Amino acid sequence: MKIKTMLKQKALFPYLLKGRYGIEREAQRVTLSGDFAGTDHPASLGNRSFHPYIQTDFAENQLELITPVADSVDELFRYLSAIHDVAYRSMAPEEMLWPLSMPPALPKEESAIVIAKLDQFEDVLYRRYLAKTYGKRKQMVSGIHFNFEFADSFIQRLYEESEQGIDYQGFKTELYLKVTRNYLHYRWFLTYFFGATPVSEANYFTDDQRPSEPVRSIRNSRYGYTNHPDVTVSYASLQDYLGDIAHLVETGKLSEEKEFYAPVRLRGGRRVADLAEAGIRYIEMRNIDIDPYAEYGISKEQVAFLHFFLLFLSTKEEGTDLDDWVKTGDRLNDEVALEHPLAQTAYLQEANDLVDELHRFAAELQLPEVPYLAQLADMLADPAMTFAGKLFQASQAENQAAVAKDLGLAYHHAAWARPYQLAGFRGLELSTQILMFDAIQKGIKVEVLDESDQFLRLQVGDHVEYVKNANMTSKDQYVVPLIMANKTVTKKVLADHGFHVPSGAEFATTADAIDYYPHIAKSGFVVKPKTTNYGLGISIFKEGASLADYQEAVAIAFAEDQSILVESFLAGTEYRFFVIDGRVDAILLRIPANVVGNGRQTIEELVNEKNLDPLRGSHHRSPLEWIQLGNLEQLMLKEQGYTIASIPAEGQIVYLRENSNISTGGDSIDVTDDFNEDYKAIAAAAVEALGAAICGIDLIIPDKTKPADSEGAYGIIEANFNPAMHMHVYPYSGAGQRLTMSVLRLLFPEVFVSSK
Amino acid sequence: MKIKTMLKQKALFPYLLKGRYGIEREAQRVTLSGDFAGTDHPASLGNRSFHPYIQTDFAENQLELITPVADSVDELFRYLSAIHDVAYRSMAPEEMLWPLSMPPALPKEESAIVIAKLDQFEDVLYRRYLAKTYGKRKQMVSGIHFNFEFADSFIQRLYEESEQGIDYQGFKTELYLKVTRNYLHYRWFLTYFFGATPVSEANYFTDDQRPSEPVRSIRNSRYGYTNHPDVTVSYASLQDYLGDIAHLVETGKLSEEKEFYAPVRLRGGRRVADLAEAGIRYIEMRNIDIDPYAEYGISKEQVAFLHFFLLFLSTKEEGTDLDDWVKTGDRLNDEVALEHPLAQTAYLQEANDLVDELHRFAAELQLPEVPYLAQLADMLADPAMTFAGKLFQASQAENQAAVAKDLGLAYHHAAWARPYQLAGFRGLELSTQILMFDAIQKGIKVEVLDESDQFLRLQVGDHVEYVKNANMTSKDQYVVPLIMANKTVTKKVLADHGFHVPSGAEFATTADAIDYYPHIAKSGFVVKPKTTNYGLGISIFKEGASLADYQEAVAIAFAEDQSILVESFLAGTEYRFFVIDGRVDAILLRIPANVVGNGRQTIEELVNEKNLDPLRGSHHRSPLEWIQLGNLEQLMLKEQGYTIASIPAEGQIVYLRENSNISTGGDSIDVTDDFNEDYKAIAAAAVEALGAAICGIDLIIPDKTKPADSEGAYGIIEANFNPAMHMHVYPYSGAGQRLTMSVLRLLFPEVFVSSK
Repeated sequence: MKIKTMLKQKALFPYLLKGRYGIEREAQRVTLSGDFAGTDHPASLGNRSFHPYIQTDFAENQLELITPVADSVDELFRYLSAIHDVAYRSMAPEEMLWPLSMPPALPKEESAIVIAKLDQFEDVLYRRYLAKTYGKRKQMVSGIHFNFEFADSFIQRLYEESEQGIDYQGFKTELYLKVTRNYLHYRWFLTYFFGATPVSEANYFTDDQRPSEPVRSIRNSRYGYTNHPDVTVSYASLQDYLGDIAHLVETGKLSEEKEFYAPVRLRGGRRVADLAEAGIRYIEMRNIDIDPYAEYGISKEQVAFLHFFLLFLSTKEEGTDLDDWVKTGDRLNDEVALEHPLAQTAYLQEANDLVDELHRFAAELQLPEVPYLAQLADMLADPAMTFAGKLFQASQAENQAAVAKDLGLAYHHAAWARPYQLAGFRGLELSTQILMFDAIQKGIKVEVLDESDQFLRLQVGDHVEYVKNANMTSKDQYVVPLIMANKTVTKKVLADHGFHVPSGAEFATTADAIDYYPHIAKSGFVVKPKTTNYGLGISIFKEGASLADYQEAVAIAFAEDQSILVESFLAGTEYRFFVIDGRVDAILLRIPANVVGNGRQTIEELVNEKNLDPLRGSHHRSPLEWIQLGNLEQLMLKEQGYTIASIPAEGQIVYLRENSNISTGGDSIDVTDDFNEDYKAIAAAAVEALGAAICGIDLIIPDKTKPADSEGAYGIIEANFNPAMHMHVYPYSGAGQRLTMSVLRLLFPEVFVSSK
Repeated sequence: MKIKTMLKQKALFPYLLKGRYGIEREAQRVTLSGDFAGTDHPASLGNRSFHPYIQTDFAENQLELITPVADSVDELFRYLSAIHDVAYRSMAPEEMLWPLSMPPALPKEESAIVIAKLDQFEDVLYRRYLAKTYGKRKQMVSGIHFNFEFADSFIQRLYEESEQGIDYQGFKTELYLKVTRNYLHYRWFLTYFFGATPVSEANYFTDDQRPSEPVRSIRNSRYGYTNHPDVTVSYASLQDYLGDIAHLVETGKLSEEKEFYAPVRLRGGRRVADLAEAGIRYIEMRNIDIDPYAEYGISKEQVAFLHFFLLFLSTKEEGTDLDDWVKTGDRLNDEVALEHPLAQTAYLQEANDLVDELHRFAAELQLPEVPYLAQLADMLADPAMTFAGKLFQASQAENQAAVAKDLGLAYHHAAWARPYQLAGFRGLELSTQILMFDAIQKGIKVEVLDESDQFLRLQVGDHVEYVKNANMTSKDQYVVPLIMANKTVTKKVLADHGFHVPSGAEFATTADAIDYYPHIAKSGFVVKPKTTNYGLGISIFKEGASLADYQEAVAIAFAEDQSILVESFLAGTEYRFFVIDGRVDAILLRIPANVVGNGRQTIEELVNEKNLDPLRGSHHRSPLEWIQLGNLEQLMLKEQGYTIASIPAEGQIVYLRENSNISTGGDSIDVTDDFNEDYKAIAAAAVEALGAAICGIDLIIPDKTKPADSEGAYGIIEANFNPAMHMHVYPYSGAGQRLTMSVLRLLFPEVFVSSK
């Protein structure tokens, strides 16, 4: 294949760097001191029997984080970072991930290394076999598995440019075989730059079958986690590869196909044997050491470089004896892996030649800047710039374990800094981020169908659910939110079912509204636009109003909407009841933006201090918003006789807003557990009358200590579809209610039946 | 009760004319020549066993139209007119309603009068008993039953003003008893003005028990449809009333309670006996002759006057002997009823005194203008102005039957003039009007919860369904229309399920969109805003485009939305498939506004002629819109080398618009029956993949004669929630598809199981 010539066709240029990617990252759970964690797999992570994102590897304390297949490097890292975020915050807060491929100091007694407590007995049996064959300690090494596929659009166009002597599937298989052989031949080059296992910790090696440390990569050397030397497989053709593996299994040299620990595996279907039918669909590179300096074990730049390198390898001529070509690679790699991390490599000339070739290749194909490419020559000149070199040098001050602990702690703190956000998806609304967090935690597959529209696809097995804005789901009927969106209809439905709603009427003309005056003149009433929007256009007359005042209120309301409502005023405190699946899962009291005086600080100082709360931020990406000191707030202060420089007395509450919206700096007070069941029953029944599965219903309650069936005990003023959830999950005060988990429970009851 | 004093309290003023109303109107079905119709009850009217709106009275050809209870006179007449509209258009087109209380000429043989063929045998038995007791002919008279209730808010406030010596229910019962006795006493006054049965037609009277015609009201006289003279009931108290009726039934003078044909019935619950428990809740006035000059048998003005008159009667002092007071009324009424319609009444003085008293009453209570009040004195002075006088005088030219036939025809034509509209509800969107028509026809209770929002409540038995915009229902899941509203998500879901959709990508920035250029440069593509709005901002390049043209198209699309889509162009014809409940019920082809030349007329003349089609109108209140000759159309003509004065050749099609929207004058062509099942199966399956119960899905099909599974046979370009239905029901050409009925079948399958 003259692939290099084909690649130079302009028609191919848009597709050159299109690929599909997947990463598996293994990591030891350790204490915040960096000690081996003897605890069980976190219970919050749901059921390991189907979890697509977070599994256990060999040992119970060894997490395996698995991204879904991504169509871009950016997408890959959204998931990789999100899954890390979930993993960190699902472990006990006093545990973290060990940031190195080599495990932390292992227990002296091998029995203290506990095999993963998996449901499937065959999985446990396999691990027992591995423990027996290789020893438990060897299984404790962690790494990155990088799954890579050229985009189909790329291979299709490449095929179109080819002579097409074989069919498309055959062409693809040949392409991957060539890339694989070259990868195996040249992987010493990667080991030089990215090898990152210079030194082992205590009790990893317990015999003299060990390198003389430090090296570039224990893991990539013959002392790493490899099969016995007599396990050899040919990559000359797919038939050879499959035949050799089958033979190894038949002769008992491998217990099963997955025990074949090659640096590259050819992948097609679910099982190795599917490859014969389907041909190679992608390849899995298993030789990548964890990058200690990458928050998620591997950097975006490294992945982009690897893609570029694989593209290059597809064009690189091979030796004539294909098996020998691979075998030579094995030998070179072992040599380079066992070099001292600060020593120059014995293959400096070959490496520099390759670097030059890579530069020419990138230039010829007019590729955008390739990460690492510019640094490679320097890294060859100065081995301290390689991963292994850098880690080894840093370890000189104290030791490698101390460096690892500090790095682990930094990543741990980053994951916990804003516990309500989800790394990788911080552009989404907070409720959607929290829902995604919970989905990933419980092993529900989640895909963002449209980010700006907060549209998710969730899946467990064959069960698919679509979710928009975190709680618009299949569980509500289409017409129900439409009922709730219409205040008049909502009131009619609730009143028909016997619930207390403010009496009132709707008007489309000023004349009709004014005619209504005699009906309400003497009692408290509210005039508001039919479609209220953040409280605009609302006038409240707690004890009736003059005709002139009423007329003005009507005009103000009509300025906001074509229809207005005139309703009796209900005195009392407004509570938001969040009802889901017939149950009140949260009750919230919202208080207008305020500060409490201490007799020392000015209002401005008190506001600034209150705004330091990490729960506060802006643009709805935090559970609470910063309190502003704008015109509205200063006017409100002025009406109370304050300026921002006033110093309120100890305990004096100063309000900066009239409205209690969280979006204008209000406080959210969770009062779920302070309510009697009778009010909860009314809220749940009202939502049932509306037919809603998910609803935020607002009740005015004058005195919540009175029985809910007493005269005037409550009035329902609004029912909200797509009610905000983040303010309940992370309230200003009171216990948080994990409503996002309730949404998932509603959508996927099967996941919550018997979580393990 | 000093009710008059109480009424004068200002607090009561807003409530004086608040009431609840219901009307039952009976009518004979006749041919368009005015002959007795021997046909069965129309099959389209669904099942009479539960139909709340359209029943049969005594005979099979005698419709009974029943309004629901309405809270205002306007509301009452919306339903009354709508139910009439449905009745007219559910009968055979060669039948109409007879507009008089007295039946048309009856068959000579009584056996030709067929008793209503009802399901319940007890209903048939009862009618057989009536036929035997009173003769079938007497049962053929029709009338208005007027159910009236003072608003509870009125009685409540009246009660508050009273001495409250009795409980509220007792107070209410006393009020209604007084009004009833006074109504019976003074009903001669109404008979004078509104009596409208001066003459009978052939074969109504068959013996000499008949008045000497003409009179004011045969129906209200002793020759009308009354009980035998020995059936007398006291209205002195509720106990007396109930006791007397029970006694009459016990002694066999009445077969059952409902045979008590009083001019006023006291009403409480469903049965007479419920009255004892519940007290009187409303009264039913049965003495009202059909007004021949009112399209719906009674006018809004008459109902308003009756309410006013009843209010007045509540204040009017009674005689001391209550039974005698009623009995006197019966005598006076019989006398006035049997007076010649053009003669002055013997009670002119009493009548004029009453008129004066009514004027004073209205003035004292500062009531708005009361209909008829101003005319009463003139009607007393000139009997020809009364209903009976007017009808009798008109009949002098030919005969009463001819007058009746012409009036009936006028109402018939009015009902058929715009058969897609529903009288009373023409302010609603057309699809909602048609849906309401179908609901009323099938006996599904329908209530408009919010007119401007097109929000309906439908009910059969305990089964309630809410519907917005005619097809937003409980049958769709909330998230499904949200999927359809998002083109990117829709395409992902459809593509995931293996359907053909245009390939493409979404962009949020101009830079990203421009970067995409190499991917599409050489093939046909479309650039459009993500949220398309009536085709704005869309550029189509059928065979690729230059970078400059592409850049311009991107800018145009971004002017309309924050995100744009760039998609491959699909060549072919666009069809709208309307899918409901897994079935394709309609397929529509839309053609841009056009005229076809004839070599004689100018384009302007052709447009004007085409616009004469009664299906065309404006503002979406007709199935098609008028073709405009505005700037856009003239520009389009200019591009083709025409002006509006051009005369296109015979058969030449001239398009006035590029877009095919019906809203801009396009033609709707129903092609439902022109399609092979394979395309229908694809449309239905695609909608199933989206999870939608109701969806309008648009397919581009290059050649619909090719099998749907052939290469490039179709592409799905859009899925629409809340798809328009009126264009399918009343298309420009092709058979109409009654999609509104499909919606009702989806919502209420129980109604369609075995319609009779």
